[in-house]
Amino acid sequence: MRMVDLIIKKRDGGELTDDEIQEMISRYISGDIPDYQMSSMLMAIYNSGMNDREITTLTLAMRDSGELVDLSPIPGIKIDKHSTGGVGDKTTMIIGPIVAACGIPVAKMSGRGLGFTGGTVDKFESIPGYRTTLPMEDFFRTVREHGISVIGQSGELAPADKALYALRDVTGTIESIPLIASSIMSKKLAAGADKIVLDVTVGSGAFMQDIDRARELAKRMVAIGNGAGRETVAMLTNMNQPLGHAIGNNLEVKEVIEVLHGRGPEDLREVCFALAGMMISLASGAANTTGALTDESLAHKLSYEQGMEIARGKIADGSALVKFRELISAQGGDVSYIDDPSKFSTAPAQCELIAESDGYISMINTMEFGLAAGRLGAGRTTKEDVIDMRAGIIMHKKLGDEVHTGDVVATIYGGSQGCPDRPLDVIEENMRAVTEDLKQAYTVSSAEPDRISEILEIIRGGDI
Amino acid sequence: MRMVDLIIKKRDGGELTDDEIQEMISRYISGDIPDYQMSSMLMAIYNSGMNDREITTLTLAMRDSGELVDLSPIPGIKIDKHSTGGVGDKTTMIIGPIVAACGIPVAKMSGRGLGFTGGTVDKFESIPGYRTTLPMEDFFRTVREHGISVIGQSGELAPADKALYALRDVTGTIESIPLIASSIMSKKLAAGADKIVLDVTVGSGAFMQDIDRARELAKRMVAIGNGAGRETVAMLTNMNQPLGHAIGNNLEVKEVIEVLHGRGPEDLREVCFALAGMMISLASGAANTTGALTDESLAHKLSYEQGMEIARGKIADGSALVKFRELISAQGGDVSYIDDPSKFSTAPAQCELIAESDGYISMINTMEFGLAAGRLGAGRTTKEDVIDMRAGIIMHKKLGDEVHTGDVVATIYGGSQGCPDRPLDVIEENMRAVTEDLKQAYTVSSAEPDRISEILEIIRGGDI
Repeated sequence: MRMVDLIIKKRDGGELTDDEIQEMISRYISGDIPDYQMSSMLMAIYNSGMNDREITTLTLAMRDSGELVDLSPIPGIKIDKHSTGGVGDKTTMIIGPIVAACGIPVAKMSGRGLGFTGGTVDKFESIPGYRTTLPMEDFFRTVREHGISVIGQSGELAPADKALYALRDVTGTIESIPLIASSIMSKKLAAGADKIVLDVTVGSGAFMQDIDRARELAKRMVAIGNGAGRETVAMLTNMNQPLGHAIGNNLEVKEVIEVLHGRGPEDLREVCFALAGMMISLASGAANTTGALTDESLAHKLSYEQGMEIARGKIADGSALVKFRELISAQGGDVSYIDDPSKFSTAPAQCELIAESDGYISMINTMEFGLAAGRLGAGRTTKEDVIDMRAGIIMHKKLGDEVHTGDVVATIYGGSQGCPDRPLDVIEENMRAVTEDLKQAYTVSSAEPDRISEILEIIRGGDI
Repeated sequence: MRMVDLIIKKRDGGELTDDEIQEMISRYISGDIPDYQMSSMLMAIYNSGMNDREITTLTLAMRDSGELVDLSPIPGIKIDKHSTGGVGDKTTMIIGPIVAACGIPVAKMSGRGLGFTGGTVDKFESIPGYRTTLPMEDFFRTVREHGISVIGQSGELAPADKALYALRDVTGTIESIPLIASSIMSKKLAAGADKIVLDVTVGSGAFMQDIDRARELAKRMVAIGNGAGRETVAMLTNMNQPLGHAIGNNLEVKEVIEVLHGRGPEDLREVCFALAGMMISLASGAANTTGALTDESLAHKLSYEQGMEIARGKIADGSALVKFRELISAQGGDVSYIDDPSKFSTAPAQCELIAESDGYISMINTMEFGLAAGRLGAGRTTKEDVIDMRAGIIMHKKLGDEVHTGDVVATIYGGSQGCPDRPLDVIEENMRAVTEDLKQAYTVSSAEPDRISEILEIIRGGDI
């Protein structure tokens, strides 16, 4: 096999065979195929695409390039959830406890990641004492004893994906659906869950800004998951505005606690109930085979709608909050912060984004709000950056809300961007600049805009 | 400027600015832009194309990456000729003397190149004593004293092209018209001629197998040349069969001598008269400004047809042969070989390709004949290979010729492939295998095929 022949084949719209894809990945990882040939192949894939067979083979080759997590020591059906990302996305912290409260084991390895705000792992770390790094045996034991554990991704899951992603990042080949789908699914499949629920976000704060591309990505990932023998369902969710009100690490944790108390923003609740409902539906009916499900109501197969009802019940009866508290405690976190969220430290400088006209919020450039939170100190640009857990934004007005001149649209929490303990005047100056820029990041119109549902579409294996 | 942004711009069909192209080439040559980004850009260019402004800027940036030959010490209008290559192409050895016999200075630096048979430089070297490596001052002096010199390309003309070509070769981006056009023209423009005639070959023995792509390549190169201030004309010529009868180095030189004597194959004569006629037309009318043209008839602007008439005259009156002899002598060659071509050494083994049916030759896979000549020893696969000057093929039957079972279609001259002095039985065995394979490389049909003109189209700056 000459790599140049494979490049030409793909360049001209041909299909690569399974052998060709497997050999290409293994020779790339061994260093036998240089980056300059792989980057040319990636651009050829960007242009010519891949069919489901090719994407699945590529995904499995990347999955098999490193460790495979074996979750079989944990009894029961393990359901993983993955979001393609957005602004203010704290769903894992809510869904995990809901699902675990149903007796479905939650063995979650989350990303840290770059980006505007920290990943789920960073958000958990804003709770003092919470340990996101556990040896695998402690991780498994925590799941067995408490029904839930959330840790940072350890080891080398899908190193081929890591290498390819780094190359794509500098060669203009990130935005390729086959490459995105195989990148996400290679890690998901390596993480060992039995079934997968994918939250594919769509809109101004998402990687996929239009629904057609999001649907396409969702279909490809569902095809890969099912092709690999893991039942996979994708939900297209609205990311045309930040999810909930809070953007930024401890601000988001406080919002999570609100939701667990049965309060909190409606859009965030809706997305959490939908994703949790789907996970419950997928896990249901398996009790008699694994004996691991504690909740009697899950003994028979449940619909998505029934799953959502159960999810709402776990919030209403307080059992999700109890499970969350149990998780925090089990991983060393100080539960007094959960009981009294006012204990979370507050940003050293705050100011307000003020409405300058009357009307309705008709557009929010969600990405701009996310980037702003990052500039305030809530995210990291390089792996070495230190996150300021206090920094971020609270949105008081969202899409469709009526505003009048002088109303507070958002509160800005200025943090120490990039490194801890900057002088207060530097923090304040940065915060004011970010706030000034945010004036351009939303639109007020005289007409009231249509409301968009949070759950746009559901894509299952049978739909493709 | 971030290279990844340029890649994305081109990937999405955008135009690169002049500054972006220039900076990209200079940073690539300095090592600041890695191969893996450039290969991604090349694939993006392959897919998205480039407009004439972009191609011209790219060409000039590559031209300016190395030495520029200054031909101004040689008085008169210098006309360069370049062929995109073919099988049996020995036109430079005929056209050079014709044009020089008109008093037009011929300062020709030719390629050596890989491929089926040697380049022009290799063919000259099959004449004992001929030196293809001269110091620039000797090259200039030879042109001034004899009106002609043909040497091998020296120095580092367009090193950016060399680096990019090597990268394209292994990343599936050779067959891109903007990249082919800029590659050829960067070297032509660096070689310093005032005007350029391009021979763009079309057909089964050419890089461009169909006329639409050949025309497109020709138009792009003509646009670049004229855009760079060098009058450039392209002629699309037929390469659906080997040019002339001879393929292989000293076999071709003997055919050249035939043509200079006013004999030789009609297709080869036609192409030579056309290309020489165009060069004479471009050079004509400039005598009064440079004072260098010796032929009175060129004092006024001549048409292409008038140029062809003059070219035919230089063969008919023997002056082109005299000039060829003068060139050989000036560069140290043994002219007794010109006077008595039977002195050229002959291949140690010969055999015949015999017709196995009756009819007309209706198709010749020219590339297969070229590759066969290479396998016989006439070409090199790596730069280190030694060419066997005696090896090659003489075609006795060509397209449209009637054949009967048992007729000799071609004589095969078996040489010592790749290295000198292989044992005779090895040479013979290789020769028989090549001959056997060549049975599939032409077709005999009952219907007489249409004849195709040798000169298919002429493309000038005004036509684009």
